Amino acid sequence: MASTTAHKLAKGQKEISVSEFFEKNRQILGFDSLVKSLIMGVKEAVDNALDACEEARILPDLIVQIDRIDQREYRVTVEDNGPGIVSTSMPNVFGRLLYGSRFHAVRQSRGQQGIGISATIMYGQITTGKAATVRSKVYGAEAAKEIDIIIDTKKNRPILLREDFIPWNEVPHGTRVSFYMNGRYVNGKQSVPEYLRQTAIVNPHASITLIDPDGKEYYFKRATEQMPPPTKEIKPHPDGIELGTLMNMIKATKERSLVKFLQKDFNRISERVAKEICAAANMPETTRPSTFTLETSKQLLEGMGKVKIMAPQVDCLSPIGDQLIRKGLKHVLDNVRPEFYAPPVTRDPKVHSGNPFLIEVGIVYGGDLPKDSPVQIYRFANRVPLLYQQGACVITKAIENTDWRRYGLEQRGGSGIPFGPAIILVHVASTKIPFTSEAKEAISSIPIIQEEIELALKACGRNLRTHLNKRERRAKTRSKFEIVQVILPLMAEKTARIVGKPVPDLKGTITKIMNIVWIDDSVTFEKGRHNVKVTVYNYTPKRQRFNLHTVLPEGCLDEVTCKPHPAEVRADGKISWELPYIPSTDTYEITFSLDGLDADEFDETNLYISGINPIDVMGADPLPGDWDVAGVDFTEVEAPAQAAEEEEEPDYDEEGEELEDE
Amino acid sequence: MASTTAHKLAKGQKEISVSEFFEKNRQILGFDSLVKSLIMGVKEAVDNALDACEEARILPDLIVQIDRIDQREYRVTVEDNGPGIVSTSMPNVFGRLLYGSRFHAVRQSRGQQGIGISATIMYGQITTGKAATVRSKVYGAEAAKEIDIIIDTKKNRPILLREDFIPWNEVPHGTRVSFYMNGRYVNGKQSVPEYLRQTAIVNPHASITLIDPDGKEYYFKRATEQMPPPTKEIKPHPDGIELGTLMNMIKATKERSLVKFLQKDFNRISERVAKEICAAANMPETTRPSTFTLETSKQLLEGMGKVKIMAPQVDCLSPIGDQLIRKGLKHVLDNVRPEFYAPPVTRDPKVHSGNPFLIEVGIVYGGDLPKDSPVQIYRFANRVPLLYQQGACVITKAIENTDWRRYGLEQRGGSGIPFGPAIILVHVASTKIPFTSEAKEAISSIPIIQEEIELALKACGRNLRTHLNKRERRAKTRSKFEIVQVILPLMAEKTARIVGKPVPDLKGTITKIMNIVWIDDSVTFEKGRHNVKVTVYNYTPKRQRFNLHTVLPEGCLDEVTCKPHPAEVRADGKISWELPYIPSTDTYEITFSLDGLDADEFDETNLYISGINPIDVMGADPLPGDWDVAGVDFTEVEAPAQAAEEEEEPDYDEEGEELEDE
Repeated sequence: MASTTAHKLAKGQKEISVSEFFEKNRQILGFDSLVKSLIMGVKEAVDNALDACEEARILPDLIVQIDRIDQREYRVTVEDNGPGIVSTSMPNVFGRLLYGSRFHAVRQSRGQQGIGISATIMYGQITTGKAATVRSKVYGAEAAKEIDIIIDTKKNRPILLREDFIPWNEVPHGTRVSFYMNGRYVNGKQSVPEYLRQTAIVNPHASITLIDPDGKEYYFKRATEQMPPPTKEIKPHPDGIELGTLMNMIKATKERSLVKFLQKDFNRISERVAKEICAAANMPETTRPSTFTLETSKQLLEGMGKVKIMAPQVDCLSPIGDQLIRKGLKHVLDNVRPEFYAPPVTRDPKVHSGNPFLIEVGIVYGGDLPKDSPVQIYRFANRVPLLYQQGACVITKAIENTDWRRYGLEQRGGSGIPFGPAIILVHVASTKIPFTSEAKEAISSIPIIQEEIELALKACGRNLRTHLNKRERRAKTRSKFEIVQVILPLMAEKTARIVGKPVPDLKGTITKIMNIVWIDDSVTFEKGRHNVKVTVYNYTPKRQRFNLHTVLPEGCLDEVTCKPHPAEVRADGKISWELPYIPSTDTYEITFSLDGLDADEFDETNLYISGINPIDVMGADPLPGDWDVAGVDFTEVEAPAQAAEEEEEPDYDEEGEELEDE
Repeated sequence: MASTTAHKLAKGQKEISVSEFFEKNRQILGFDSLVKSLIMGVKEAVDNALDACEEARILPDLIVQIDRIDQREYRVTVEDNGPGIVSTSMPNVFGRLLYGSRFHAVRQSRGQQGIGISATIMYGQITTGKAATVRSKVYGAEAAKEIDIIIDTKKNRPILLREDFIPWNEVPHGTRVSFYMNGRYVNGKQSVPEYLRQTAIVNPHASITLIDPDGKEYYFKRATEQMPPPTKEIKPHPDGIELGTLMNMIKATKERSLVKFLQKDFNRISERVAKEICAAANMPETTRPSTFTLETSKQLLEGMGKVKIMAPQVDCLSPIGDQLIRKGLKHVLDNVRPEFYAPPVTRDPKVHSGNPFLIEVGIVYGGDLPKDSPVQIYRFANRVPLLYQQGACVITKAIENTDWRRYGLEQRGGSGIPFGPAIILVHVASTKIPFTSEAKEAISSIPIIQEEIELALKACGRNLRTHLNKRERRAKTRSKFEIVQVILPLMAEKTARIVGKPVPDLKGTITKIMNIVWIDDSVTFEKGRHNVKVTVYNYTPKRQRFNLHTVLPEGCLDEVTCKPHPAEVRADGKISWELPYIPSTDTYEITFSLDGLDADEFDETNLYISGINPIDVMGADPLPGDWDVAGVDFTEVEAPAQAAEEEEEPDYDEEGEELEDE
């Protein structure tokens, strides 16, 4: 019995082709519901088009058209102005899974697996039985090549049903791919227009047109003519390299000595560092890579672990940038008029398994955002919006793992998705995004990535809290103010009438009760200028003098006009004033205006004070310790207590391993 | 520029081998953190061992041993008493991804992808540089074959470093696989012992021994000698078949006529149904499959959609069963002594994309389970516990999408994971589980699967609510009782003393105030018998008579002793008593005892009443309408209002498409 089973099983064993595997597991590719399938189809074609344009340094012009064929069947057409695809490559690019140009490169791009577009064409073929049509023209070609293509799923190879040369004179170069698929077109939170809208947010250099099945046109206008800087291909960074990977690299290297191999085949290993590693591994610099064994490879890996290696350059990555994140968010949120955009945070690059990555976070708060629902989460990976599988994503886990009660959001038990009128945007940029599946919907919970996201969230959360604290303190003091200023004169008047004496001057009394320096600021925007007015009220019984500081946004320092003239203006935008003595109950005013910013690029002034006890001041924070105010006669004040509390690391143990997954 | 890019890109394009793909994307296989990698490694080997034993109808005896090699490196060894693997198959089974015997079969099994164990061996090789060792002996063989194996990831082919024949006399047949990998051994909620404990819950026929890195032994004892019934391989069911799949089947069939093709190549298509389909598609029964085109295939698919086809047989599936779910849960929860195990719910099989599946749900409530945290979710797919990616799983989505406030759990806004002292267990059994990735950690959100889980959750939720309602009503009445019975006599005594009269008999007065028939029941277990005592108190001013009903658990009907003798005992365990008139303020007692159940198989009696207004009764529910009580003189009462309300379907639109993913 047992024996027959063994032989029966042996007989049944056979190879499974990768396309056959995905044909039966198309949910792994994201084709698990009709709505989602249509979005996936558009996404794969758009990702490819944007990648191709950027690689050729062409500002992308994309046209996406969706035609309804019948109740379940649609035709998706995506046309780009990219460099085109040489005709011999077309069959494999579109008709073969696990085939592509970006898989082996250490460089940020959207497509990395060599699966997406051919999987889409396969799904279309499975559900409709129809071939896809691809047309492409390279620069200088007289005509475009056009093919009708299907996939032989048993063999994972393309079958061409037709190939032609077609004149395509109106287009100098570009690609148009067109396929039929079962799907369902909807509007709403998870839809093709929403996908393209979010794509436009993080790709402001692209122009995207959508023609929906009813012929309605959406036009996502290009917001900037500037391409993102090109991403450079680099060698693997030594951080987190696995033994097996190292052994493969040793086997594959063309270098003849260990010291050269380290220098040439890795990112960020200079000659000096390479020599240090050889010394740390206790191996001669001239060791020939061909002589390495399992044991000596281990020895080398340990040596590499002992030497400090510089973080990777940022130029293999393409972050969106603070300004564009802010702009992008404002772009989305014109209807809900949020109260506050917390200054976005961009972290320095780190490395996971040899791949550099960096995290960007932005938070929006208040206004018409819903108060009693979970915060909205916008997730992006290499400038691609992630609409599905929020629950599976390291971004969500990092948000859930952060105690948002500290930053002014409601959160039961201090974990889970917080509630409140907020949107949290997180962008992960990496030379290799570790997706949880081929559908590229969620990022895997790699400990170092989660840690970096949490640090970025906390930093941005602090920006949010600073704002909320300020708002709350002001509101409290303002109401105290109002009470004192309304009730006291009324009481004085009534008492004076009763005792038949004149009403006394209460200014001094109010001052004594308030005993505070009150700083108020307002920002207005007029004729392309931001006008800021800062008013200092001395509601203390003594005269006061102190120093006032602020930071101007990047790039507008040349265009600032201040009154009075500041004591110091620094190249990084830091400005300081030495105020004169302000008599008790008197006020003092500072104004400045900024040129050259968009209306929505500046909406709140952060004011800092020094040379006075911050407890006596309302409306400005104590000057942080890192201002290092040499050159001006400031009395340093202590950084606020919160700063220390926030420096703590997330809950990882010594090995950088997450303690709990869910 | 654009042209050079096209040519440069073309030059970079190449094939990616599937092993190379997973080498760079090992997080897709679940190898994304050290803790998880070790669990994954154990899981893949254990899944294979259980599948092999079940295929050969052998009660599984598994030994799992984990040795710590150094701080990061472990050796995992899994030995089974399965049928063994014939020696020529061994290299491909363990050294080649996408190779296996279970991929093409429509039958429930754990392994279905042909990826797991070879991916594990690859991960081990990448992280430690070491080969895996596999030893296997088939029934009747004189010696075992033993190989040391690594994978050529560029080619996705096995490389044997050693092959030997080894005497393995103590073992008649079986397989032992042993590999080195980087990992981290922990205890706790997500750990190897927890994985094996949950495996034991849903595989009570298996015996599993774990020897942990410190030499500590865990023994998960076999709970039943009975194998789960063998799962039968079936043809694809016609429901949800895609056009492309149909066309592939038409192309591959050996049948020469349409009517035979339908009958032979599909599950549940009889000759009659096949003829109906031909008629519905308006095609001759003799149509040769070889003549089909895209258009006629579509026509056939439409015809198939018009004919009602029987649901699939359950025998291709292996549900755990109500009794074993209950047993399994009790097995886990001996420490927390829950108050209530809601009767588990098993749904009838349904079909997704031609694959039969069914859902089982159990809920545990109260006791020492934590009151102020989210409920615990136990997820299983084909008898395999799912420990990771809870947020990505359709089981979680179905739970979040259910309004648990109706069933007595706390849930903000009626969606999301509910809070309360409860555990929800969900098992999805299918001939093909649509996992979200090759790591097999979460099930994809296929609309019909989500719908079925939600229906099962609601049914089990109703069982929970019935219990909670009963408990609450009893508690309320009991406290009213206590007040009336304590206060009234005290008042009477005091008043009597003041007015100098004797204390009156209050029995009648209390009765008037309560005006209720109170039914109390208790279950005790002694010497292998469950003793149930039901006491009826007539706290109304009139004499009362009515009928009392209950349902005994399966299989103990022969062993029941009732006092008094019931009016009717039915084969399905339904028992009814006609009670005599019970005078006002009097009581009446019914007892019965059950033999042959385990102590924990019976802990609450569900009592029903008829022939009396249910408003006047506390402690029993009105008899549900579906009892259909012919033969006994019962006055039918209306089914409770809740039943109608619960019949509603989940929020799907007419196409069965989910409206919102997250």
